[in-house]
Amino acid sequence: MADHEGKKIVLAARPEGMPTAEHLQEERLEVPRPGEGEMLLRTLYLSLDPYMRGRMSAAKSYAAPVEIGGVMEGATVCEVVESRLDGYQPGEYVLAGAGWQTHAVSNGKGVRKLDPAKASLTTALGVMGMPGFTAYAGLLELGQPKSGETVVVSAASGAVGQVVGQIARLKGCRVVGIAGADDKCAYVTDELGFDAAVNYKSEDFRDRLAEACPDGIDVYFENVGGKVLAAVLPNLNEFSRMPVCGLIAHYNDTSAPEGPDRLPGFMRTVLAKRVMVRGFIQFDFAPLMPDFVRDMSGWLADGSVRYREDVVQGLENAVDAFQGLLEGRNRGKLIVQVGEDPTR
Amino acid sequence: MADHEGKKIVLAARPEGMPTAEHLQEERLEVPRPGEGEMLLRTLYLSLDPYMRGRMSAAKSYAAPVEIGGVMEGATVCEVVESRLDGYQPGEYVLAGAGWQTHAVSNGKGVRKLDPAKASLTTALGVMGMPGFTAYAGLLELGQPKSGETVVVSAASGAVGQVVGQIARLKGCRVVGIAGADDKCAYVTDELGFDAAVNYKSEDFRDRLAEACPDGIDVYFENVGGKVLAAVLPNLNEFSRMPVCGLIAHYNDTSAPEGPDRLPGFMRTVLAKRVMVRGFIQFDFAPLMPDFVRDMSGWLADGSVRYREDVVQGLENAVDAFQGLLEGRNRGKLIVQVGEDPTR
Repeated sequence: MADHEGKKIVLAARPEGMPTAEHLQEERLEVPRPGEGEMLLRTLYLSLDPYMRGRMSAAKSYAAPVEIGGVMEGATVCEVVESRLDGYQPGEYVLAGAGWQTHAVSNGKGVRKLDPAKASLTTALGVMGMPGFTAYAGLLELGQPKSGETVVVSAASGAVGQVVGQIARLKGCRVVGIAGADDKCAYVTDELGFDAAVNYKSEDFRDRLAEACPDGIDVYFENVGGKVLAAVLPNLNEFSRMPVCGLIAHYNDTSAPEGPDRLPGFMRTVLAKRVMVRGFIQFDFAPLMPDFVRDMSGWLADGSVRYREDVVQGLENAVDAFQGLLEGRNRGKLIVQVGEDPTR
Repeated sequence: MADHEGKKIVLAARPEGMPTAEHLQEERLEVPRPGEGEMLLRTLYLSLDPYMRGRMSAAKSYAAPVEIGGVMEGATVCEVVESRLDGYQPGEYVLAGAGWQTHAVSNGKGVRKLDPAKASLTTALGVMGMPGFTAYAGLLELGQPKSGETVVVSAASGAVGQVVGQIARLKGCRVVGIAGADDKCAYVTDELGFDAAVNYKSEDFRDRLAEACPDGIDVYFENVGGKVLAAVLPNLNEFSRMPVCGLIAHYNDTSAPEGPDRLPGFMRTVLAKRVMVRGFIQFDFAPLMPDFVRDMSGWLADGSVRYREDVVQGLENAVDAFQGLLEGRNRGKLIVQVGEDPTR
């Protein structure tokens, strides 16, 4: 590949159901030149996150969809290659939103410098980045966990879930993870210190979840929906809280799933137990970011929060990796290594 | 009927679906004699409220069910007939929980004296009582209506709904009612000052609701569920609030309704719009009661809150009236006059 030639993945068509290479097409990228007040970035790492499925759909959501033919959006760790922007030098590392491509030009807006001496560059996309902040803000602000309460988190070994559970443990809660594989369950209990974990694909999932929550559930951090949510409902305590962060079981739904209609039963539980259900995205809690950086830096430094990353090699494998994310194939925070990392 | 003989309605069997005279049986009541520290009450008015359907079922909820053979519970306005309890004199009027019967003995617990010179005795069961307080607390504490916002309330002409809408108007909101009859809709707009009202039984209900809410919905006060909730969902604004007070469309459900499953779509809206959904019962907000009494007394006195009561004559008609409540046949707060009211 010549220096002036890169790669990008564009949204060629809006997927119905699972996105494939038909919808996410790799194209040749003519490496752009930075103008005055701009810099050229080379992508080292691309974050893959469930919210990206929403950006592929035209349906109205909290953010505009990616346009057809446009480069897929995404958070990235980049190296500054060339700079005509004050304050940035070649060889520096930044957190940027360069998207699914090897190179991008930036005017510095929304870009933050990273110090590889302080923390591994990839953590800016995971535990110290958007997923970590999502876990922190959603659990603490909306979940309001109190010592001795039971906190249940679905997608427990994922980028957000693993952080939710560990913060809840730090707050003195009993923490129960729900995941879709026995090794994921073992990971959150054995490595991250969750009190229990239940595989939602096990036959006796409902019984096992109830057993794991003998005092009911005070906080359910929702990442999944579907049968996991249905199993959680009967265990919710009075005045429990349900921060709704994601619904990964439904991101590929093409129509409302078959009945019965579970909404009336859900509302009945909300009423009888006075449950607080609240959707959120991390942007809503931006003022908390300094608190998060302070707390999470401390927890990482003293080892009270640990993390797992699943780094896939090569932008050409991003589509398959993204499919795996929606199917739960990843193990920990999913990241694509797009270019060489000189710090490793 | 001799002085020592009264009537009571007992829960003879737990209904599946609509309760009938088979489940709610009238029986002869031997009028009890008050012991030391007790008083004998004669019931003038019995409040009929949707929550009572829940008390007939064995399903766990926020309150214990009525036992088989037990007198149906309910709030009442009573006259003190005989008193061996300090502080109560024959001829005084009280708000009590005497239930579906003509007489009851009370030790004064949970009883409050009423002054018929200040307000019509029936208001203690409606606008100045539990339904009024439910509306006040749920709307103001959970709905958090702000001037200029749009507030939608279902069962709009009912005991709670009519108060919700009027308080929202006082707070400077655009108020849209949803009801199941054209005369109910006309009542809330023409008599109570709602900005608009939509009949959910009309063919173009969804379109008409959307038209009535050109700026979307900021607060949806939920009394109903079912198709009304489904029509509200697409109109919810970002950061909207949904106090869940009742689900009268589902109280007679014997199983989860047919599909499609609307829960995933509901959760998707909650997430994308960051909706806050919260079930409540008025007991949760007991500390607000003095504020309510002060505010509502003022609003009634200056005419800024009005109300409508539907008074049915005779305990023997209570079961039919209660069926009517679940079917929406009542017009305003439903009350059964059980005995003569000397103040009228």
